[in-house]
Amino acid sequence: MTKRVAVIGIGMTKFDEHWEKSLRDLSTEAGILAIKDAGVDGSSINALFIGNMSAGRFIGQEHLAPLATDQAGLNPIPATRCEAACASGALAFRKAYHSILSGEHEIVVAAGAEKMTDLKGTDAIATLMGAGDQEWESSIGLTFTGLYALIARAHMHMFGTTREQLAMVSVNNHKNAVHNEKAQFPKEITVDDVIKSPVIADPLRLLDCSPITDGAAAVVLASERIARNIAKQPVWILGSGQASDTLALHDRKSLVEMAATKVASRKAYEQAHMKPEDINLAEVHDCFSINEIISIEDLGFCEKGKGGKFVEEGKITIKGEKPINTTGGLKAIGHPVGATGIRQIVDIVRQLRGECGPIQIKGADNGLALNIGGSGATSIVHILGTEPEPITS
Amino acid sequence: MTKRVAVIGIGMTKFDEHWEKSLRDLSTEAGILAIKDAGVDGSSINALFIGNMSAGRFIGQEHLAPLATDQAGLNPIPATRCEAACASGALAFRKAYHSILSGEHEIVVAAGAEKMTDLKGTDAIATLMGAGDQEWESSIGLTFTGLYALIARAHMHMFGTTREQLAMVSVNNHKNAVHNEKAQFPKEITVDDVIKSPVIADPLRLLDCSPITDGAAAVVLASERIARNIAKQPVWILGSGQASDTLALHDRKSLVEMAATKVASRKAYEQAHMKPEDINLAEVHDCFSINEIISIEDLGFCEKGKGGKFVEEGKITIKGEKPINTTGGLKAIGHPVGATGIRQIVDIVRQLRGECGPIQIKGADNGLALNIGGSGATSIVHILGTEPEPITS
Repeated sequence: MTKRVAVIGIGMTKFDEHWEKSLRDLSTEAGILAIKDAGVDGSSINALFIGNMSAGRFIGQEHLAPLATDQAGLNPIPATRCEAACASGALAFRKAYHSILSGEHEIVVAAGAEKMTDLKGTDAIATLMGAGDQEWESSIGLTFTGLYALIARAHMHMFGTTREQLAMVSVNNHKNAVHNEKAQFPKEITVDDVIKSPVIADPLRLLDCSPITDGAAAVVLASERIARNIAKQPVWILGSGQASDTLALHDRKSLVEMAATKVASRKAYEQAHMKPEDINLAEVHDCFSINEIISIEDLGFCEKGKGGKFVEEGKITIKGEKPINTTGGLKAIGHPVGATGIRQIVDIVRQLRGECGPIQIKGADNGLALNIGGSGATSIVHILGTEPEPITS
Repeated sequence: MTKRVAVIGIGMTKFDEHWEKSLRDLSTEAGILAIKDAGVDGSSINALFIGNMSAGRFIGQEHLAPLATDQAGLNPIPATRCEAACASGALAFRKAYHSILSGEHEIVVAAGAEKMTDLKGTDAIATLMGAGDQEWESSIGLTFTGLYALIARAHMHMFGTTREQLAMVSVNNHKNAVHNEKAQFPKEITVDDVIKSPVIADPLRLLDCSPITDGAAAVVLASERIARNIAKQPVWILGSGQASDTLALHDRKSLVEMAATKVASRKAYEQAHMKPEDINLAEVHDCFSINEIISIEDLGFCEKGKGGKFVEEGKITIKGEKPINTTGGLKAIGHPVGATGIRQIVDIVRQLRGECGPIQIKGADNGLALNIGGSGATSIVHILGTEPEPITS
């Protein structure tokens, strides 16, 4: 049995409003790109995992995993759909990773896909609230913008985080997205643009919020034996952590930290034998600007309460000490909810392979991805690197 | 890393119309029963997997896995929802199994749950069609009874399978359910009752069809080290196979066999070093009576086309040579779709522990469970036994 697993292929569709493509078209496009990038034949794929949050409600289609294998010509391999709201993609990646560690498989595809624009906006928002607590949150009309607005207000109150600091998160992400041809909104915005954009749920404005998006992403994972044989630039999984918290925000001890992110990242750091300061770049779940600030703190990149300052000081920019969301983040690339966790892996792999052109982080040999479900009930962290850790156990 | 995994605890709710209980109540009840039965403390559980098909549409709740851990007091352990339509339960079981094989976990809960009766009947039927092909089947009005009616008609035409033989499947399942206090319909029926029940989609009558049900089931799995230390009667996983086929029925080469079942069962037999004739008893996915007949053939219990005769000759009864659905099957126990795959495991474990009273199969030391999604796009087979196979690899 292998103890090391690498990403050997990546692919994604443009994240966009795809009126001319269905979910099956998008997932197939991403999957084929990843398999081609890996340089393997479809017949060598042992299994498929797909992250998807809510195709049942968005398009009336459950049972998405065998549909994806069928469309990609991969039958009869085992196919698994994983769902953890907006962390469905990272969950699929993690289960794919474990399936190789288990000895059951050697080469697997982990994909994520969501087709959100077939529903009109208000119905899409209601569907997304399936990630919250139906009995205690969504049934009384709360939306995720509302929940994150409560979180933002608490963070501002306790730590003096400013409206401008929140805006700077979106400004940084949009600046990076200009160089990402797969991004839904590849254009620069200013702090003033954010602050003057319409209020959605005070203090959050439209430009604090990730958009509704269609898209898919896929990666190919392989055991060490396969990866060393066929991959030119394998990117290794160094650590994987996942944790859960209450679905309902009111059940938490604190509004200003996500306990699940702390547990999940600690586990991933332990497995990778790394500390937060060792991380070269990170993909962080900026569904709303406040979540990037809180996540920066919970991942240990700075002290609790100092996230706003960290952003304001430019530490998260391409040239900063801890580049974050170097390709645009959820805000500017778009957030097809089930696809985002895989898209984060795709972009870290691109960075570690040196394929990012003007947004390339030079000398990076590792990256961290944080994918969050709901208002923090699921948190999944992966650390990837260009060199495998020595196996000590 | 362990190479052997055992089921050390089981629990389930009554399968019924549960107007007074929500999905979270049902899943918690089953989970706590399984943990108590295992004799472990909640704090020793490393992870939770839950199979659920469509809570997003049935009750407006996705992100079910952390909700289940939260309600059971198990936070912050990692929680994974698996979905493969009516095979979601077996998928959760299989992923839980692999998570232990991977070395990541030692004790995990695998659960399945569905709350179907909160929607009115026609909406529930439409929701279930999420398991079919949305673009080519459900959008034009096909239901699963319609799809299985096509399968039944083809089987009758090609092999002379009779209307009475179909009815005998339901008769056997109902007879066994009389002794199952968890069953939704624990009462005997006759061939005449089935044949005279209302036509749903010719040739299938009401009493050929599994019902709409609320319920949950859960099991605790453990590594060999843990199982040998704490379980009085561990039941070992000897084989696990899963395969995929086209979602749309019209894309298949044959209407009268399920290719995915053949691939999945061959894999499970291989892993268990067993043949069909070695199986002592089986839980077979009788969502519609015809599917039990086809599955008996595809599992290799008899030749293709001879399934009807196999049933007519009484071979599937409690005292027959291949007892099938000894506790009532989907037809009589009920079919809360995400829970069924786990309920099958629960009932095999009950048989192998000798806890089944008047429906006990004496001397059984192994059992097979077949859980099918949609019209056969997902098929998952597990073989369990009282003694672990020698590990040869």
